[in-house]
Amino acid sequence: MVVILENNATEEQIKNIKQHLEDFGFQIHESSGVQRTILGAIGVKPGFDIRKVRILEGVADVYRVTSPFKLASRKFKEEKTVIKIKDVEIGGSKIAMMAGPCSVESEEQIFKLAEVVAKSGSKILRGGAFKPRSSPYSFQGLGEEGLRLMREAADQYGLLVITEVMQIDQIELISKYTDIFQLGARNMQNFSLLKELSKSEIPVMIKRGLAATIEEWLMSAEYILSGGNKNVILCERGIRTFETYTRNTFDLSAIPIIHNRSHLPVVADPSHATGLRDQVPPMARAAVAAGADALMIEIHHDPENALSDGPQALLPETFSQLMQELRLIAQAIGKTI
Amino acid sequence: MVVILENNATEEQIKNIKQHLEDFGFQIHESSGVQRTILGAIGVKPGFDIRKVRILEGVADVYRVTSPFKLASRKFKEEKTVIKIKDVEIGGSKIAMMAGPCSVESEEQIFKLAEVVAKSGSKILRGGAFKPRSSPYSFQGLGEEGLRLMREAADQYGLLVITEVMQIDQIELISKYTDIFQLGARNMQNFSLLKELSKSEIPVMIKRGLAATIEEWLMSAEYILSGGNKNVILCERGIRTFETYTRNTFDLSAIPIIHNRSHLPVVADPSHATGLRDQVPPMARAAVAAGADALMIEIHHDPENALSDGPQALLPETFSQLMQELRLIAQAIGKTI
Amino acid sequence: MVVILENNATEEQIKNIKQHLEDFGFQIHESSGVQRTILGAIGVKPGFDIRKVRILEGVADVYRVTSPFKLASRKFKEEKTVIKIKDVEIGGSKIAMMAGPCSVESEEQIFKLAEVVAKSGSKILRGGAFKPRSSPYSFQGLGEEGLRLMREAADQYGLLVITEVMQIDQIELISKYTDIFQLGARNMQNFSLLKELSKSEIPVMIKRGLAATIEEWLMSAEYILSGGNKNVILCERGIRTFETYTRNTFDLSAIPIIHNRSHLPVVADPSHATGLRDQVPPMARAAVAAGADALMIEIHHDPENALSDGPQALLPETFSQLMQELRLIAQAIGKTI
Amino acid sequence: MVVILENNATEEQIKNIKQHLEDFGFQIHESSGVQRTILGAIGVKPGFDIRKVRILEGVADVYRVTSPFKLASRKFKEEKTVIKIKDVEIGGSKIAMMAGPCSVESEEQIFKLAEVVAKSGSKILRGGAFKPRSSPYSFQGLGEEGLRLMREAADQYGLLVITEVMQIDQIELISKYTDIFQLGARNMQNFSLLKELSKSEIPVMIKRGLAATIEEWLMSAEYILSGGNKNVILCERGIRTFETYTRNTFDLSAIPIIHNRSHLPVVADPSHATGLRDQVPPMARAAVAAGADALMIEIHHDPENALSDGPQALLPETFSQLMQELRLIAQAIGKTI
Repeated sequence: MVVILENNATEEQIKNIKQHLEDFGFQIHESSGVQRTILGAIGVKPGFDIRKVRILEGVADVYRVTSPFKLASRKFKEEKTVIKIKDVEIGGSKIAMMAGPCSVESEEQIFKLAEVVAKSGSKILRGGAFKPRSSPYSFQGLGEEGLRLMREAADQYGLLVITEVMQIDQIELISKYTDIFQLGARNMQNFSLLKELSKSEIPVMIKRGLAATIEEWLMSAEYILSGGNKNVILCERGIRTFETYTRNTFDLSAIPIIHNRSHLPVVADPSHATGLRDQVPPMARAAVAAGADALMIEIHHDPENALSDGPQALLPETFSQLMQELRLIAQAIGKTI
Repeated sequence: MVVILENNATEEQIKNIKQHLEDFGFQIHESSGVQRTILGAIGVKPGFDIRKVRILEGVADVYRVTSPFKLASRKFKEEKTVIKIKDVEIGGSKIAMMAGPCSVESEEQIFKLAEVVAKSGSKILRGGAFKPRSSPYSFQGLGEEGLRLMREAADQYGLLVITEVMQIDQIELISKYTDIFQLGARNMQNFSLLKELSKSEIPVMIKRGLAATIEEWLMSAEYILSGGNKNVILCERGIRTFETYTRNTFDLSAIPIIHNRSHLPVVADPSHATGLRDQVPPMARAAVAAGADALMIEIHHDPENALSDGPQALLPETFSQLMQELRLIAQAIGKTI
Repeated sequence: MVVILENNATEEQIKNIKQHLEDFGFQIHESSGVQRTILGAIGVKPGFDIRKVRILEGVADVYRVTSPFKLASRKFKEEKTVIKIKDVEIGGSKIAMMAGPCSVESEEQIFKLAEVVAKSGSKILRGGAFKPRSSPYSFQGLGEEGLRLMREAADQYGLLVITEVMQIDQIELISKYTDIFQLGARNMQNFSLLKELSKSEIPVMIKRGLAATIEEWLMSAEYILSGGNKNVILCERGIRTFETYTRNTFDLSAIPIIHNRSHLPVVADPSHATGLRDQVPPMARAAVAAGADALMIEIHHDPENALSDGPQALLPETFSQLMQELRLIAQAIGKTI
Repeated sequence: MVVILENNATEEQIKNIKQHLEDFGFQIHESSGVQRTILGAIGVKPGFDIRKVRILEGVADVYRVTSPFKLASRKFKEEKTVIKIKDVEIGGSKIAMMAGPCSVESEEQIFKLAEVVAKSGSKILRGGAFKPRSSPYSFQGLGEEGLRLMREAADQYGLLVITEVMQIDQIELISKYTDIFQLGARNMQNFSLLKELSKSEIPVMIKRGLAATIEEWLMSAEYILSGGNKNVILCERGIRTFETYTRNTFDLSAIPIIHNRSHLPVVADPSHATGLRDQVPPMARAAVAAGADALMIEIHHDPENALSDGPQALLPETFSQLMQELRLIAQAIGKTI
């Protein structure tokens, strides 16, 4: 932490500031110029609220020098994390594809789509079983029956399962069926849930909150990592901005930034980011070109009658065609799909 | 819902669109101009995803005509809701004051502050007992012990208690101690929790999410109302914008907008909105002038050593002085405090 | 400027960084801890691009210590600036009221409204003569004829004139008619225009850009001040956020923040901030309570037929009534109107 | 325009609303359901302020049905616009590359960089001659001398020139040297300047304003088109959001959205969008994959000593290498560079 003192800070104020910094557990290094005195407060205290120093009399400004996250940072672990689940790797040179419906709706639906996913060469089946929605009047998911169907469909076609967990009391149940927990954007800072998930060994994919900075997102990863679960994946799915022609603004620059600051793999979800199927293929291509470690894409064989988010689902044939294009782009940047 | 057709929509497309609208349960009214055909789809379906119509061939655009919320709307209930808890009213011509520390830290602290609250003429004691924080390394609250201390302190000074509930499994416990549930900004769209709270009779104050539109916020109120709990209070506490000199941007215009569209009372929380104590008094004054039904303000007798959010807490004497100013402003607009 | 070095920065890198800092004209103070070396680079260079240091090998992070603005800062000039124009003061304990139509439309209109303004006790007449609009198909203003009419109306009723200048080649013309230049939100960073206005002695009111941070806004003030024009007024008129129920989000916390960091007076414009007349009175009241030095309000005697922005204009009688309320609030915080 | 009436609108109110709509020049079609009456107001009035209808008594809501822009829309002109300048096309299947320094600094610098640009196979040289900056204390450009040097360097290496115009009185001068006018983000809504540029035949590239919606951006294009200049190019360069790890948020989804709604070509500028050179290559790749018609990239042979924006400039060798990668990605999506 760097503490800039007011030009006219008194001796007494400076003494008081130093005392506080020591009480907080920092070592102090002073640097005085003609106009300014700067105190370097050395010591790593990840959760420290720097406003506590900013409000002291005589302090002009305070800057945090170390990241608030540690285990998630590239400095802590230089080599990139590759998450291995059965025969699938996320974070390596092969881009992992996750595809499936927004919600599991029926046995027929999920088996049909699992087949599409497998045939396209994708390895991970996505699908929601619990769907509390922004409107209390909407379809709310099949529950455990949905989990069971998804697991069976995945097993039949040799796929992994990723599905969302929304409450602590669902963890045990969902553990029986899934290979990866998805933590939804709205739960990115549900710290109680993060803590419980940190005790599991099942990988957790954290979707970025609609208004979450990259730093806050990495702090949520830190929660899981600090609890002992090393298998954390991040998923960019759009942030909220003033633009209204898109549902969200897909922040693809988050991908190289995270790769620069963290060792964790990053997934891109163009379906939720854009909200309309026309946008999905170009944004999926862009995500691969930007360096995404995996993609998550919604598909549906009958989007007009899908019980949720049909408008953003790709038809199976569009998805297969997209996979061809993505393979070429992956190749162009030295990767495979 | 209003459906605008493409200028060159074919007969067949139009027929298909109408069929879909009927299948969705709408009555159709057609209006054809020289350049445009417009279909009015009549019928109230609050949770309907209008993108389902937008993606049909021949549709140029779709607009929702009714609000997605109903029970929360001024059209549904014209007279303003006044929540009565013991001898305190929220939503009437007397502005309710909620004050207290961010976290309950000790018996001494909460009793000392409860006294300050009571002496100032405020009627509601705030304080957090469960504090999962954005950093896993920060103080996490006293738990049930905190609830008990807060209840005792409130009872001694004739105050109501408001405290945050973060998980479904805390509802029962917290019910024993609190008069109002506070639903935090990060849980505004925790729909499972909303549903459970809707079964309680204890009033729920919903803090606006950092990136929540006013419409989404009212939808969260709708969740509680539709489950049977009529005692919903909204709380503006700042939204996230690009501005960095403030922690959040305090959206005071939300107050008159909600009063215009909804019958529910609105509280303003200048402490969390601004994040620094210098900002709290002017923004508290502005909130009263803008028509807030209540204010929530953080106070602490020793903010430098507060275990959480000290930098935004007012000292007891500053708070008492602010109360004087607020009384004059309330008077100026025909209210009391 | 504070330069944080990488933990593993080499001797050579550190030498190179120091050489650069010296070449840039900074004095260097070094502070080495166990984990970190911090360089304090002392010297005030307002326009320096700190990214130039951030990209040097071995640098972990860089923080600017001094504000990028100087003349606009409270540190440079401690006492608040009061702008005196004829018998009107802006920035003192009397809140200045600016009112009038969006555009000057006709002689009858502007005289009628000038009378309303004067009778209400307001001292400044606002009105636009040049109105290039976001649509090329909209009303574009009366031009010099508008300026002349506004000046005559103001003179007849003993008012000052404020009107917008949009191009350098309008400065001379508008100078003949106005008492205050208004610089529109879209021109806040039109640096060529700022430079020319800095050579004038006529006060300049700078409207905050839709996406301008408070810091950038103060930098625009710095442009005018550094050119020699000391009469700068700032005007908050709403920022762009994700919220769609309001046209803009009225950032009232900008008022106390600027009062804290700068000596310049701040005006609030609730008409443009909210865009709808129902919102104007509560937000005008809130602005006074938040400490605004002046208010700018649009009025029109026939808003339904106004040629521009009628929907946000108050009727004369609503405006007069609002003035009563504002006087009471001003009184409550120790001011007058 | 679609006008939704209040459920309880009176006969008289409805009559009044209809009268207004007719006075505004609209044809009316009425559609009455059990709960709602909807008026379709037919007629294309691009600059019409719909708030004029919204404020009428008895109106519940109003929606604009036609886009506010016309000439820029895909409906007006179905085939994509290809801008031809000498032997270069922008908007066709060959992606156009624009590269060069932020500012022209010296003869040596611009000739050296023009050579790099030409050797890489790029066809357009970028560079700034007039650089009014956000700080009054920064380098402000070489002026006409810069224009002359850039033209000579471009001619020697067979390149086109693109440079920024900031004021109306620069148009004539810059016309002598440039092949494409660049309109900066801060001038996107400088309507006086737009109008003058619309009278030129030189193509105009409009950079998206920092807080501009795609609709507003297209309205600025409409300004140029409606004045008679058909050669309009759009340039995405990042929007302002809450994220602080990047300078701006690069909104790549704007590319497919504009291609869907407009016939105009879209350029992407990853240098300004990200602000740091590490981010430029991945975002340049993503832009090509998302379908950009051209790219604009800043390069500098000595970025540490660049007079402006050095930190975001690529070194010549990094740029050459990036060109290789971009060619492969272009190929993958059926284009060339």
